[in-house]
Amino acid sequence: MGETSFVTDQVWSKIPDGSITTPKGFKATGIHTKVKRKRKDLGIIYCEQPVPAAAVYTLNQIQAAPIALTKQVLEDGGHVQAVVVNSGHANACTGHAGLVDAYTVQEKAADVFNMQADNVAVASTGLIGERMKLEKILPGLEQLVPTESKEEASSFAESILTTDTGTKEVCVQVPIDGKVVTIAGVAKGSGMIHPNMATMLGFVTTDAHIEHDVLQQTLSKVTDQTYNRITVDGDTSTNDMVLTMASGEANNQSLTPDHPDWDAFLRAFTHVNEELSKMIAKDGEGATKLIEVVVNGAPTNECAGKVAKQIVGSDLVKTAVYGADANWGRIICAIGYAGVPINPDTIDIGIGPCQTLLQSEPVPFDEEEISVYLQNDTIQIKIDLHVGEGYGKAWGCDLTYDYVRINAGYRT
Amino acid sequence: MGETSFVTDQVWSKIPDGSITTPKGFKATGIHTKVKRKRKDLGIIYCEQPVPAAAVYTLNQIQAAPIALTKQVLEDGGHVQAVVVNSGHANACTGHAGLVDAYTVQEKAADVFNMQADNVAVASTGLIGERMKLEKILPGLEQLVPTESKEEASSFAESILTTDTGTKEVCVQVPIDGKVVTIAGVAKGSGMIHPNMATMLGFVTTDAHIEHDVLQQTLSKVTDQTYNRITVDGDTSTNDMVLTMASGEANNQSLTPDHPDWDAFLRAFTHVNEELSKMIAKDGEGATKLIEVVVNGAPTNECAGKVAKQIVGSDLVKTAVYGADANWGRIICAIGYAGVPINPDTIDIGIGPCQTLLQSEPVPFDEEEISVYLQNDTIQIKIDLHVGEGYGKAWGCDLTYDYVRINAGYRT
Repeated sequence: MGETSFVTDQVWSKIPDGSITTPKGFKATGIHTKVKRKRKDLGIIYCEQPVPAAAVYTLNQIQAAPIALTKQVLEDGGHVQAVVVNSGHANACTGHAGLVDAYTVQEKAADVFNMQADNVAVASTGLIGERMKLEKILPGLEQLVPTESKEEASSFAESILTTDTGTKEVCVQVPIDGKVVTIAGVAKGSGMIHPNMATMLGFVTTDAHIEHDVLQQTLSKVTDQTYNRITVDGDTSTNDMVLTMASGEANNQSLTPDHPDWDAFLRAFTHVNEELSKMIAKDGEGATKLIEVVVNGAPTNECAGKVAKQIVGSDLVKTAVYGADANWGRIICAIGYAGVPINPDTIDIGIGPCQTLLQSEPVPFDEEEISVYLQNDTIQIKIDLHVGEGYGKAWGCDLTYDYVRINAGYRT
Repeated sequence: MGETSFVTDQVWSKIPDGSITTPKGFKATGIHTKVKRKRKDLGIIYCEQPVPAAAVYTLNQIQAAPIALTKQVLEDGGHVQAVVVNSGHANACTGHAGLVDAYTVQEKAADVFNMQADNVAVASTGLIGERMKLEKILPGLEQLVPTESKEEASSFAESILTTDTGTKEVCVQVPIDGKVVTIAGVAKGSGMIHPNMATMLGFVTTDAHIEHDVLQQTLSKVTDQTYNRITVDGDTSTNDMVLTMASGEANNQSLTPDHPDWDAFLRAFTHVNEELSKMIAKDGEGATKLIEVVVNGAPTNECAGKVAKQIVGSDLVKTAVYGADANWGRIICAIGYAGVPINPDTIDIGIGPCQTLLQSEPVPFDEEEISVYLQNDTIQIKIDLHVGEGYGKAWGCDLTYDYVRINAGYRT
């Protein structure tokens, strides 16, 4: 699966009104249990029966209780019937008691919806180190009435947010075997967003018929090119998780890499996850701009991704973009310490429409043109290292006064 | 050389009025050539003859012209008679022409002071990608009149600054063979401060008798525990350099690890470099506080340093310290992604006088006591991983509105 292939023809259709309940077989909802002061804080995605599922998790060695629980669920057969998500506290660093809390939520949800507990995944996001407020969450579970409506899907999208400024939803359809397969996703991000399973929650539903193993391999691969390519602040959370569930109700022939329409499915699935990743990057804490870095000519695709991510992760590049300053010196500096073999004399750097460096030598550019470009809400930086054929992208956001304001007083 | 040994008895004396010209054999000065609008921008440290010297450089693969030149000087015999430093432009990414500029400065300085050009080191700091203003710097070299006075040493200290808010000078004396050996240092830092040869300039003078090879090994080792343990913004500059020169005029027996007073010299030399490192961290762009992280119980000293540095480098920890918020969740999160083997269940975290986490479980602490402590201008965070015997420290600063302000408009 070459990354470059994805720049070519689009095989899916965007469904602007779609949501995670557009794929057949999924219901959802989200409510306010007063764990958070005002916003919704408890949600569920629910299927009538267990369906093949897959997940990827934070690589932080400190992992929250819900991560441990959901890993166990996926390892026991790879099927999930529902996922329960709460926001407000992360149930991380809460010791054995926190793990018991997570299992208590799982049991209660199984009880309310008449499911087997070991088919119920959980996820949490919010403050580290606080016990869950079970006195609010357990009664809350009894109030959940998931439906297939767009409104309830949006309620779920709201219920998983923390400092996000808005919900993040995407939905596409793609023809497989002449059937319509729908893939939809919802995510939250904002802070503690970096590398490996980039500090976020994502839930992707599809009515495609696809088995657990294939789904897991596909999600892991796609994660490397999407969620693992975004950064907000370089911090990798204890609670990151992306979970995908496949109801099979589109009734296509089971999808594997040998399926004639595999490539179409893969592109559509990648697109959903890439869109969610970009929405997370763009809505980073305090951000005013999305930064997209495209690297060509690296020794390998992996190296290209590493360089791209080093650039979007540089505080100096991020503040320069915030200040609409075409400071290419900070970009080449970040390239130099990305830990990837380069030739210091063959680097091209473009910022939007302007070439600023060619073969590592400064190129005169129109200061006015570039400063107008830097007012946009998406800024593209293009690099060519001229070392090999490696290609990769990464996304991040600018670093602003508001990032400092938000994070100087999050806990108190 | 165990790092732990340095917490014990102090063998050196601080010389509050000392400077880089206190060690015998050194003269210095700094002047304003109008490369910068107002502040001094050209300086020199000068000896009457070439003396043993040693240097460490940025590990960024993009290295500025002065780095290439000074490396060459040190490789050709390890002796230096003078170092010429300019601030305002970094002479980085200026191609072949930039390298010629650096050599032109070297030749001119050799000419003015009647030195061999290959004994003259150069260093630059400032904006990347701009050619040196030789029409100001070359006449400036003729204006330099280095002396042994404290005032001229301070002029040098001023001339190397960029966005620093003040000069950084330290001087100690230590008895070696019953003679007084003086070691002094001066540095600049502020932005692009991170790891490997932490984005900064440092110059350390001593009148100790010590050969080039021993001095080089010692500087490299000490750099790992000092300059490489500070971070301001995670960006590694193209121009970092620490240069040390030893005049030998204290007339001690040549220092080697077999010398009976070697340990005293090493401690004093380490102290000078550690103090300069802390001054740089504390004066990070926009910083209001120095953060010191001490890690015990890591698998190795190297691992301890890595964990300590990950914590001081976390934007979320840095903003929390700025906001006087005892957010230990962000600290344990950073420990978890430092890439060092840990036991997630045995971590202790203390913030100043308060234990906040014991064996990975939250400990109730006095919110008022800790919030009073967090108003200090030095904040200490103590970690025990309870995995091994490894010990290490790192230093950084808080992330503030002013960091964003300074960096959103540096170039324009």
